[in-house]
Amino acid sequence: MSTSRIRKEVDEALLGFVDRQRPALLTISDDLAPMLSALDALLGGGKRLRPAFCYWGWRAADGEDVPGIVAAAASLELLQASALIHDDVMDSSDTRRGQPSAHRRFEAMHAAQDWPGDAEAFGGGAAILLGDLCLAWSSEMFETCGLDGESRRRGRAVYDLMRTEVMCGQYLDMLEGTRREANVATALRVVEYKSAKYTIERPLHLGAALAGARPGVTAALTGYGLPLGIAFQLRDDVLGVFGDPAETGKPAGDDLREGKRTVLVALTLERASAAQAAALRARLGDPALDRPGVDGLRAIIEETGGLAACEAMIERYLREAEEALRAAPITAEARQALADLAVAATTRIT
Amino acid sequence: MSTSRIRKEVDEALLGFVDRQRPALLTISDDLAPMLSALDALLGGGKRLRPAFCYWGWRAADGEDVPGIVAAAASLELLQASALIHDDVMDSSDTRRGQPSAHRRFEAMHAAQDWPGDAEAFGGGAAILLGDLCLAWSSEMFETCGLDGESRRRGRAVYDLMRTEVMCGQYLDMLEGTRREANVATALRVVEYKSAKYTIERPLHLGAALAGARPGVTAALTGYGLPLGIAFQLRDDVLGVFGDPAETGKPAGDDLREGKRTVLVALTLERASAAQAAALRARLGDPALDRPGVDGLRAIIEETGGLAACEAMIERYLREAEEALRAAPITAEARQALADLAVAATTRIT
Repeated sequence: MSTSRIRKEVDEALLGFVDRQRPALLTISDDLAPMLSALDALLGGGKRLRPAFCYWGWRAADGEDVPGIVAAAASLELLQASALIHDDVMDSSDTRRGQPSAHRRFEAMHAAQDWPGDAEAFGGGAAILLGDLCLAWSSEMFETCGLDGESRRRGRAVYDLMRTEVMCGQYLDMLEGTRREANVATALRVVEYKSAKYTIERPLHLGAALAGARPGVTAALTGYGLPLGIAFQLRDDVLGVFGDPAETGKPAGDDLREGKRTVLVALTLERASAAQAAALRARLGDPALDRPGVDGLRAIIEETGGLAACEAMIERYLREAEEALRAAPITAEARQALADLAVAATTRIT
Repeated sequence: MSTSRIRKEVDEALLGFVDRQRPALLTISDDLAPMLSALDALLGGGKRLRPAFCYWGWRAADGEDVPGIVAAAASLELLQASALIHDDVMDSSDTRRGQPSAHRRFEAMHAAQDWPGDAEAFGGGAAILLGDLCLAWSSEMFETCGLDGESRRRGRAVYDLMRTEVMCGQYLDMLEGTRREANVATALRVVEYKSAKYTIERPLHLGAALAGARPGVTAALTGYGLPLGIAFQLRDDVLGVFGDPAETGKPAGDDLREGKRTVLVALTLERASAAQAAALRARLGDPALDRPGVDGLRAIIEETGGLAACEAMIERYLREAEEALRAAPITAEARQALADLAVAATTRIT
């Protein structure tokens, strides 16, 4: 299938699953409609990158084009929806995919109704529950994808590991925010678990395991997927500071305002003069950081050579991924699709 | 198996599962040890009520005593751990099972290390992630319980429904807190989804479905489980106001401090004079409510007849459950075990 065709089929499977849940919720109570609208709004966006990698992991392992793999792959979007919703609560983020984040939607609903009680606490609580629902629905969708029990048993081992890894990676990411000193090595460990494995390597492995891949294929997918996943996150870090809001769906410099301790920030601090480091530390994580403030931090990240070092790392990891892909024992069709996905994953945000 | 024997086997299955996850986490990073300690602390408590109902649902449907059903039943404790951890974040509860709640543990760790940043936000974020991990591990434990694929396929339909229902019930519970007027009917709807189905009816159905129960057995388990579940929650509401902290693991009158809109509160407000209602509304949900304040509200709940009405409802639902149990087409052993569980569920907190 072509990339756009996969995207379309994943969307159909995903929205079809949610549509089948809809009557069950509304039978419990009409009051649950806002949970569904918040989910609809979130699922309207997103590049479906993880399902695409899962699908091509399956095809790379000689899996045939059947509806079951599309449903299994699409289940990863519900896992991702859960992670995004909870992440936005944890980071107090206002926007996601160019729209209000789930907790802000529920908070606004509470305020608009002029309900008694704390609107922010209501928003956070409702979003925690919606994220839980997405996490539960992801495994429900995976287990009912239509692939046979033996395939799912193989795939489940990867699916389960992937969930554990991303949650642990997110905890390590929070710990990273408690460090007084920047550390490229620990920041890279977070990137590995929170992003590289979760976004690329494990979706590829999931597809491959569902198809019963030979060990050589799985290893080749790691050789390609892990460095590509690191490059993907480093690109995301760069876009979080320098990206166009129209493309990222987040306000300009939002990562700076949130104070994310990214590899980009660590590379910058390694290279900064005492004055530059002090200026960066003083404003990083300041929720009131305005546009001139963002521009000032951007200048430091460029002038220190932090940005150039990060771009060089992206290049290095991308080359590593490309070399592994060239040598991978997979079909020409899968090789081409994965080469295209590498470009898609590292040139714009997902 | 005897009640204490089931409890012991469930504990072994549960702690064995967590022990098998432990090395995977610590291989990612030693920094994940606090996640495991927080979970160990929580799982050290709890009455394992849901696993017991699941086990007896299986036995009632003529399931044999095999390890697989114990593991499947124990997986419900991880679902419950997730719900408790997230609930405590949403309610800003300080304690759970007589110990600091998970988010307070992480908050205290942040404060003790004198880390930069917001300790409360760190605590909440870490607890959200730990709850996510428990939710993911619950389905992992269910799917790897050892029962065959066809049994799990039948059980999964109940397991999935149960997760959706409890999350929706918790959202409706939050909505209940936004009402200006008490409403016994809507409070009872919350009880049905958040507690009665989740704690008793669905665990029974899960065991029954795993065993391939005849429809008559499933219906009989609803006839027993749903009213018992309502009685269970009403007892929990009474204990949340009048219970002994040594038994509930929560400070005296904690539900009043949290402002929970329980059926007990709704029954009280229906019966209250204008002055009593005003006094109750003024202090309900006041985090600073002290012991004399708790005593004052307790007096109102008693003097209005709200408490007596709630006790009468508990009696009525319990009798309904007992009658259904007498007529249920199940073995004498299962009938006796379920009669014992009904007492255990409605005389003390779980």
